[in-house]
Amino acid sequence: MAELILITGGARSGKSSYALEVSEKKSHSRIFIATCPSIDQEMSDRVTRHREERQGRGWQTIEEEIELAALFPEKVQDAGVVLIDCVTLWVNNILYNYGEEKVDDFVIKNLCLKWLLAMENFPGTVICVTNEVGLGVVPENRLARKYRDLVGTCNQLIGRKADEVVLVSCGVPLKIKKKRS
Amino acid sequence: MAELILITGGARSGKSSYALEVSEKKSHSRIFIATCPSIDQEMSDRVTRHREERQGRGWQTIEEEIELAALFPEKVQDAGVVLIDCVTLWVNNILYNYGEEKVDDFVIKNLCLKWLLAMENFPGTVICVTNEVGLGVVPENRLARKYRDLVGTCNQLIGRKADEVVLVSCGVPLKIKKKRS
Amino acid sequence: MAELILITGGARSGKSSYALEVSEKKSHSRIFIATCPSIDQEMSDRVTRHREERQGRGWQTIEEEIELAALFPEKVQDAGVVLIDCVTLWVNNILYNYGEEKVDDFVIKNLCLKWLLAMENFPGTVICVTNEVGLGVVPENRLARKYRDLVGTCNQLIGRKADEVVLVSCGVPLKIKKKRS
Repeated sequence: MAELILITGGARSGKSSYALEVSEKKSHSRIFIATCPSIDQEMSDRVTRHREERQGRGWQTIEEEIELAALFPEKVQDAGVVLIDCVTLWVNNILYNYGEEKVDDFVIKNLCLKWLLAMENFPGTVICVTNEVGLGVVPENRLARKYRDLVGTCNQLIGRKADEVVLVSCGVPLKIKKKRS
Repeated sequence: MAELILITGGARSGKSSYALEVSEKKSHSRIFIATCPSIDQEMSDRVTRHREERQGRGWQTIEEEIELAALFPEKVQDAGVVLIDCVTLWVNNILYNYGEEKVDDFVIKNLCLKWLLAMENFPGTVICVTNEVGLGVVPENRLARKYRDLVGTCNQLIGRKADEVVLVSCGVPLKIKKKRS
Repeated sequence: MAELILITGGARSGKSSYALEVSEKKSHSRIFIATCPSIDQEMSDRVTRHREERQGRGWQTIEEEIELAALFPEKVQDAGVVLIDCVTLWVNNILYNYGEEKVDDFVIKNLCLKWLLAMENFPGTVICVTNEVGLGVVPENRLARKYRDLVGTCNQLIGRKADEVVLVSCGVPLKIKKKRS
């Protein structure tokens, strides 16, 4: 991996648009890995809106809800930049597919490390989009609490490995970790 | 508009106090646009508390829940600085007054652009206060999800147009976008 | 107090780990003040996990849910650094012990100022960990709204007094207030 960039922020903060912009500056050969499952109309609308944003901008899209590790490096080897959008939905998919009771901190750490390791053999840039979900009051729902802990655990893993971490708020990117070059 | 400043942060982060401080450094001629409707005791208490904070500090207050565009520039023309507190309540008022089903991303964008454009003919400084509301787990309530998307959309519009964007946490302002002077 | 540092961030953002790291650089003589009550299995698991993190790293632990002021300076006088983890649970304990209806903004401010003042006679470094809890949508639950307001009020008090305030996201610390030296 030439470089790992983590882009975080709240819902509708402009993080995905910023991730697209950064990716498009990195390389003309771009793969978008969509982790979003189309389970209802609201989700489908979002998927469509995001796809429209990429339309005509030279992106190849791979839909992969679970097996991110299996994509690296073979299936993306021609890309200069791979954008994974987003980590939070991937965690959600893991919970849903494995079963909530089978996924704890230890399991999610290992699953996340698996794709972080697989990426090391990819020569291009990887950009991950995630959400900050832990900045509200403690959710009353136990599963929601578990979910936000698991997301936080993954965000920490990726953030510590990343060359660059960017926090987006009100459409404004703030680099909170910078590559030492 | 001489300058547009967006101040964001969480509930009780100190963003409104900071906005007052910044405004008072800008000009002695100040107008406060209060978007807060007084619908219950809790709201009234907040309105009163904020009004007390401004008391004796030379502020003229205009209460306007919806038609921000109609205030610019005539009704505020004598002011050196106009402080709008806050964007999130304005979005809330729009949802409530127009009816939830009539307000989508497209509608809120146009309504927000309308007052951003109207402000261009105002010669002073405009300071907008908003909330980050997208940094918790996805709300279970569909309307809450819609609301946070609409707020995020407005925050992005204003943030991109703003000369300065400030994120306030624990009473500490952090400039995440700075005027290129 | 030689120095007051406030470390904030979301749930599972890495703020506690960062606070431990910073403390361990400050002094070999460390006291950890745990405000976490063990009311259920989930809480106990967290307490255990955090205690394991500190295990073998030379920390003395004092469990104190309420009376932080009573610890300073006598009970911690031999320490070079005192880490309080965390302010949000302390607010929670105050609400639970005093009774929700007896705690308002004024009361929590006074209780918080009490221990901030008591700390002034402590010659070492004090590090406080807190949570940002006001960055999601307005909670439907009235008590949750009150809680996030009280936490915000304390965070502002501490943040304004602090020499350094650090916002942690994705395991990455961002200094938002820096000691003027």
